[in-house]
Amino acid sequence: QTPIDDVVESVELGAYDHYMLKEIYDQPRALAATFHACDNLLRDDSCFGDGAAAIFDRVNNVQIAACGTSYHAGMVARYWLEELAGIACEVEVASEFRYRKRVQHEGTLLLTISQSGETADTLAALRNAGEHEFVGTMVIANVDNSSLVRESDLVFLTRAGAEIGVASTKAFTTQLVALLMLTIALGRRRGMSPEKQQEVINALQRLPDFVEETLELDTNIQQLSEAFIPKHHALFLGRGIQYPIAMEGSLKLKEISYIHAEAYPAGELKHGPLALVDDDMPVVAVAPGDELLEKLKSNLEEVRSRGGELFVFADRAAGFSSEPRVKVLNMPHCPEVIKPIVYTVALQLLSYHVAVQKGTDVDKPRNLAKSVTVE
Amino acid sequence: QTPIDDVVESVELGAYDHYMLKEIYDQPRALAATFHACDNLLRDDSCFGDGAAAIFDRVNNVQIAACGTSYHAGMVARYWLEELAGIACEVEVASEFRYRKRVQHEGTLLLTISQSGETADTLAALRNAGEHEFVGTMVIANVDNSSLVRESDLVFLTRAGAEIGVASTKAFTTQLVALLMLTIALGRRRGMSPEKQQEVINALQRLPDFVEETLELDTNIQQLSEAFIPKHHALFLGRGIQYPIAMEGSLKLKEISYIHAEAYPAGELKHGPLALVDDDMPVVAVAPGDELLEKLKSNLEEVRSRGGELFVFADRAAGFSSEPRVKVLNMPHCPEVIKPIVYTVALQLLSYHVAVQKGTDVDKPRNLAKSVTVE
Repeated sequence: QTPIDDVVESVELGAYDHYMLKEIYDQPRALAATFHACDNLLRDDSCFGDGAAAIFDRVNNVQIAACGTSYHAGMVARYWLEELAGIACEVEVASEFRYRKRVQHEGTLLLTISQSGETADTLAALRNAGEHEFVGTMVIANVDNSSLVRESDLVFLTRAGAEIGVASTKAFTTQLVALLMLTIALGRRRGMSPEKQQEVINALQRLPDFVEETLELDTNIQQLSEAFIPKHHALFLGRGIQYPIAMEGSLKLKEISYIHAEAYPAGELKHGPLALVDDDMPVVAVAPGDELLEKLKSNLEEVRSRGGELFVFADRAAGFSSEPRVKVLNMPHCPEVIKPIVYTVALQLLSYHVAVQKGTDVDKPRNLAKSVTVE
Repeated sequence: QTPIDDVVESVELGAYDHYMLKEIYDQPRALAATFHACDNLLRDDSCFGDGAAAIFDRVNNVQIAACGTSYHAGMVARYWLEELAGIACEVEVASEFRYRKRVQHEGTLLLTISQSGETADTLAALRNAGEHEFVGTMVIANVDNSSLVRESDLVFLTRAGAEIGVASTKAFTTQLVALLMLTIALGRRRGMSPEKQQEVINALQRLPDFVEETLELDTNIQQLSEAFIPKHHALFLGRGIQYPIAMEGSLKLKEISYIHAEAYPAGELKHGPLALVDDDMPVVAVAPGDELLEKLKSNLEEVRSRGGELFVFADRAAGFSSEPRVKVLNMPHCPEVIKPIVYTVALQLLSYHVAVQKGTDVDKPRNLAKSVTVE
């Protein structure tokens, strides 16, 4: 048997109907390959580029600037960096970050994220960064020799391989792997225990298997997706680290199915969006870990009691069960820390199936370009 | 003639059809009264509560936690605090802030914002704040003796008067006045020049007049609003400090007209939402100041070339003119720093007229409560 990350990725469509589907299914390979880019995360920073150790030693804060899907990856990283590594992190949309007069904390690493390495606003954010303002700059990109790669002090290349579908899938999940590895490298310097580091590494090692398990839910997800075909709206709810995943799920649905999907942190529901909820507005909930689960359940009860139809993506151990107007997708029981990655895959499949059934041009949605090189 | 802030606000509906409209028109009074709560902003901090000076002297960062409309006020304040006062500021939805393991910078003021002073998640954010974690806590609220007021070190009470409409209007704009005054108080300690302080004070002094001028556009706004009645969607775009105003404008439309309106920073348009744009999706643009104006114009051209209908709220000196599929509302030419407040009023009127013509219960939109005292 060939190890999963030695399987060579091909740019041919093969047996798949669309590149997007092929790229969704390529994720076990891509995630494993990205994880194996670092030899020994517990000791060695060289996979982040020459001089990584010297820069990482001086980092007290991380400032992330990115656009679109990459911005969502940054939002997930903020939870990891603050909770696990004890490093303050701020994330901002690059087109806002670059024009704003900011106050920067001492010892800040400027981290950009971009699949192509050419995203115009993200590149401008890097170029406008004052030389003395940051202890260093780093990019997470998928394309070697791209502008962001050439112009950053440190580089981590994701091993997603060529991503042809305009809606990003494996580029996003491999960015998350890179960010979780960065969390270990920085956390190691800020009191993250060796046990905790090892626990995250173990979770990353098992990640491709959990993604495989999620891919096996494809038929169930396709069945769920049918309810969305006649709809023009959707609300995605998440809490904590699953909130950015709700954002990414809603962006995917927007991009390829043209359904107006919007994400909210579930706690904000009562502060406005609940007014929109009726039987035309399906609500997708990305269930968080134990601590926030009860809160989400009460948010969902509000939705249900107002006539909304619910689609819950939850750990199969979380105690959700389908009932009238509530459809539950039982997700693999996996470590909390990698849940954002695993759940993303299910939401990608949801959007894909809705789009296919609506007959849109899945790989080339209207109005959008793969790499946004204009401002 | 009675000075505008001595006019006593009444809880009777009077000549108005709805409390919301009455409260929109009450803003010149409410804003002036809130501004006059401080005697001498250039020298004296006592309007922020006993002991304000001692706490303000130690503030290096401001952490804002709030929900809904008050969260949008916090987002505007972030631009003011960083640009004018040179103070780092972070803003987070209270229901996320309270549950997250955060890394807090030294010398941080925890600032909560809540009309009622009873918002459950915001109150929990204050109560969960570690005692030694912050140099002090402050609330901006509209209701004296409320829980947040009783439990915070410092208090600024807005002078909005009773707000009865569920969708917040004058509470929001008076919060913004309070936040701009706080910017002066903190900026004074961080090198904000006396000239700049005076410039902001002058702008605040003239604010009620600019709001009056905006209210005189009511008929024009009502005409614009007709285009929204048959629509189910809307996209609100802003850049810089006008981005949170686009968010607030879209929330207002959601809350009372049940149109699914969503806001985006205009630079993110190409990273997804542009796929949604067609002639069913009107786009509202809140024009920013000079520097970002050209960028916005190119974003708007993208919308127009994809068949979208545009509604631009712009300074009458900004050089926008109505043309096929572009309707321009010429706003008063006012100082940049108070534009977020002035433009908010126009967007309130837009939502109000859409809702009235759709026949919704403007003052008590479905599913929503005035004060969200549950989590």
